[in-house]
Amino acid sequence: MWRSRWRGQLVTKARKVGDVKISEVGEFGLIERIAARLPSYGADVEAAVGDDLAVLAWDAETYQLATCDVQVEDVHFVRDAITAAQLGRRVAAINLSDIAAKGGTPQHFLVSLVLRPEIEVEWVEQLYDGLGEEACRYGADIVGGNVSRIEGPLVVDVFLLGKIRREEVLLRSGAGVGDLVLVTGFLGDAAAGRALLAGQVAGMEVADEQRLVSAHLAPTPRVREGQVIARSRRATAMIDISDGLASDVGHVCDESGVGVRLWADRVPVSEPATKVFRHLGRETWELALGGGEDYELCLTVPADNAGYVAQAVEEETGTHVTCVGEVIEEEAGRWLVLEDGREVPLESVGWDHFSGTG
Amino acid sequence: MWRSRWRGQLVTKARKVGDVKISEVGEFGLIERIAARLPSYGADVEAAVGDDLAVLAWDAETYQLATCDVQVEDVHFVRDAITAAQLGRRVAAINLSDIAAKGGTPQHFLVSLVLRPEIEVEWVEQLYDGLGEEACRYGADIVGGNVSRIEGPLVVDVFLLGKIRREEVLLRSGAGVGDLVLVTGFLGDAAAGRALLAGQVAGMEVADEQRLVSAHLAPTPRVREGQVIARSRRATAMIDISDGLASDVGHVCDESGVGVRLWADRVPVSEPATKVFRHLGRETWELALGGGEDYELCLTVPADNAGYVAQAVEEETGTHVTCVGEVIEEEAGRWLVLEDGREVPLESVGWDHFSGTG
Repeated sequence: MWRSRWRGQLVTKARKVGDVKISEVGEFGLIERIAARLPSYGADVEAAVGDDLAVLAWDAETYQLATCDVQVEDVHFVRDAITAAQLGRRVAAINLSDIAAKGGTPQHFLVSLVLRPEIEVEWVEQLYDGLGEEACRYGADIVGGNVSRIEGPLVVDVFLLGKIRREEVLLRSGAGVGDLVLVTGFLGDAAAGRALLAGQVAGMEVADEQRLVSAHLAPTPRVREGQVIARSRRATAMIDISDGLASDVGHVCDESGVGVRLWADRVPVSEPATKVFRHLGRETWELALGGGEDYELCLTVPADNAGYVAQAVEEETGTHVTCVGEVIEEEAGRWLVLEDGREVPLESVGWDHFSGTG
Repeated sequence: MWRSRWRGQLVTKARKVGDVKISEVGEFGLIERIAARLPSYGADVEAAVGDDLAVLAWDAETYQLATCDVQVEDVHFVRDAITAAQLGRRVAAINLSDIAAKGGTPQHFLVSLVLRPEIEVEWVEQLYDGLGEEACRYGADIVGGNVSRIEGPLVVDVFLLGKIRREEVLLRSGAGVGDLVLVTGFLGDAAAGRALLAGQVAGMEVADEQRLVSAHLAPTPRVREGQVIARSRRATAMIDISDGLASDVGHVCDESGVGVRLWADRVPVSEPATKVFRHLGRETWELALGGGEDYELCLTVPADNAGYVAQAVEEETGTHVTCVGEVIEEEAGRWLVLEDGREVPLESVGWDHFSGTG
């Protein structure tokens, strides 16, 4: 899967261009090049440097948050493997997760559908049912959209606006040395669900299978958890785990100018996912850290406050929070400590497993 | 071309559904069905009933405007016929035109690109150059976006946020009997440019050809004209002409509960477009009213104030404003008065010509 979001100020250096294909420069190469060409922002754009969404001035106390995320047929989903309602919930959830990662409150969805004329009307209605259900769950409205024709794969593009108090906003850039790294929920359920859908594992219990498959098809955005964390004012940085913890914690390191040490044996993996990974003959941490699409939150909190934040989230939302690592000096690097005490570079975990959603 | 935008409150009646294809119900049928299933809005959503974009509460004095518009390869554009920079300007302009139609000020673009891996990086850069140039021209920023892969037609989906003072916002619903119908600029240039690109007419002067083709490929959104009109506080309704005046003035009639009488001989058509229409053996008014994609503004103004508004726009922007009709009682219908005095129903003009952009 080749997908990413960019922020204009991420990279400012211009490069020479020629007749190079996107496939040759990859996603980050393309994003760098786009960013290099953009004019600078107006004064009402707060620079959420390297962040996944735009942070815009609303008034003296409030920021507006704006994000967009797309689902493309045969890249992010296959029609046979997901119902329209699940797809609607999924694309809503992915956008909601971006707002959750800032601790914000989602407000308004715009939905852009690009459809083949032979698609059933009922399919589109069910897509909207899923979208509307998920929006409603978090108090957001679908306020507009656009319908277009395509002779090719379906595209469901969603745009979400939200709000947050300025003093509560959590960026990727605030992590400090000595902070602990916490995550919400379990990691790896989506990867396990993907493996089940792909028929790589059989013989699971129905309830376990359903849990994992639905974690993959229609993840739960951690909107309320994000709000509790933001309101606690004790976290220093936050991100949602879309590409896998190993990769996403790297974005926090990039933006905060720090290193990180994660402990493999602390990574929270559910029992059903553990079973699937065992069936696959893979290390549990491998898919939990690299599998992606869990849409849990990863946050950094000064050690003194970590217990308080974890407890607040658990009490107010029922979602478990686990400490999985610590923030270290940038020069000390980014490491994963395995169960046997060996340390492996974090960049060796992750992207290679990140090859599809079907 | 099958494309439209919907507003949730437009239609509230539910219908039974079955195994019906989108192609069988058409765009409006689909939009009706989607709208019927949406939950009602929150209190901070102003009902821009039947409008092209969402009008959201900002503060006591201000609305936020939010719109999205997409360009799909082989539906809205053909890569051979438009440069990447033109495509960028075009998709920006179409969104800017939505904001212009409310009299608003554009602020923030988010850009969602769905691309094939074999697309050249330089093509994407030039697309952004065009987008950025057009955004910059109207004081807006590109603040974020998303890049995804597709194995199929390119999709360029753009979201635009803007602002307007509450007391200045112009909807489609305010037209009153006795108002005059005004339009900015010339109508039919885009249709003429489309005919030239399709090779239907030869032997035009280069300058004329360039003017018409660029009116089609990269239209000029009437942002400043819209602002002058809104600030005058003398217009009653406004819309941008995306589908052709005959069709778009019908939306104003729908939302305002009025009829209309347009005069064919008053419709402003440029000399080069007139030449093209003559070559095509078509009545000038036919393509000027039905051709679409001009992105001029159509507004209604009480007769006493029409001269003032037209003069204000011309003095402040240099854009000519023409009176092309009058608002009449709803029961009196919707008519086009031809040059020989015959009246034809307005619905007989328009959509049939609206068959593509290539």
